[in-house]
Amino acid sequence: MKDCLFCKIVAGEIPCAKVFEDGSVLAFLDINPAAKGHTLVIPKKHFETLAEMPDAELGKLAIAVRDIAKAVVKETKTQGFNVVQSNGTAAEQEIPHVHFHIVPRFVGDGIGMRWKRAKYSSGAEMAGLAEKILKLTENERR
Amino acid sequence: MKDCLFCKIVAGEIPCAKVFEDGSVLAFLDINPAAKGHTLVIPKKHFETLAEMPDAELGKLAIAVRDIAKAVVKETKTQGFNVVQSNGTAAEQEIPHVHFHIVPRFVGDGIGMRWKRAKYSSGAEMAGLAEKILKLTENERR
Repeated sequence: MKDCLFCKIVAGEIPCAKVFEDGSVLAFLDINPAAKGHTLVIPKKHFETLAEMPDAELGKLAIAVRDIAKAVVKETKTQGFNVVQSNGTAAEQEIPHVHFHIVPRFVGDGIGMRWKRAKYSSGAEMAGLAEKILKLTENERR
Repeated sequence: MKDCLFCKIVAGEIPCAKVFEDGSVLAFLDINPAAKGHTLVIPKKHFETLAEMPDAELGKLAIAVRDIAKAVVKETKTQGFNVVQSNGTAAEQEIPHVHFHIVPRFVGDGIGMRWKRAKYSSGAEMAGLAEKILKLTENERR
């Protein structure tokens, strides 16, 4: 897509520190990493959010994330990693082209993935919400 | 797996606020949510981390995450969502059974997904690391 930073990287118009490439997926080091080895994995085709991705592309992308994560943890000799993917400006998605972050993690690295917590007012509120989402998910699966 | 909290939920030994279930995937509301509607999506089969998951199971799980996320954002009338998946105690994985968090997000909700930042000492350091990870990823893809 015109004016999309990641599409420009896919097209080779902007350079990247490439970590993986095949017909449908590109991966490169984040230039503003949470830790050295922090990698972004993107579909070559432009999709703004996960919700837009067709089954086949999404399956390939997830498998690439797994394989690249295994390589990242091997190279960085780490004990763990986070996979993070954000959709929409409300969710702090900065580039509107689907990307999975792979962040290598070390005990006591201080990166911190803990969130503010919300509370359901009752078990009934929680059960009611689950039931509504379940019905909507069934519609998505049809 | 014996003594795995999520395997017990899959087996119906521990209740959950179910959001989705099929032959290979289960999803339910997080009991300690970052926001109302915060959902966990898990493979029914026990895998400790993403690295262990076979292609087929991982593909199905990713597609379920997408569909459930669409339902969560519809029901919570939100403007975005994060997908977060942690591997290993260093990465703050609390239950050693693969789970994807879907966190509905709102502008100014204060949840915050910003991380501490690291820096490469040079472009050469970054390029060298990328090249090493690329070779390791190629091995994983074989």
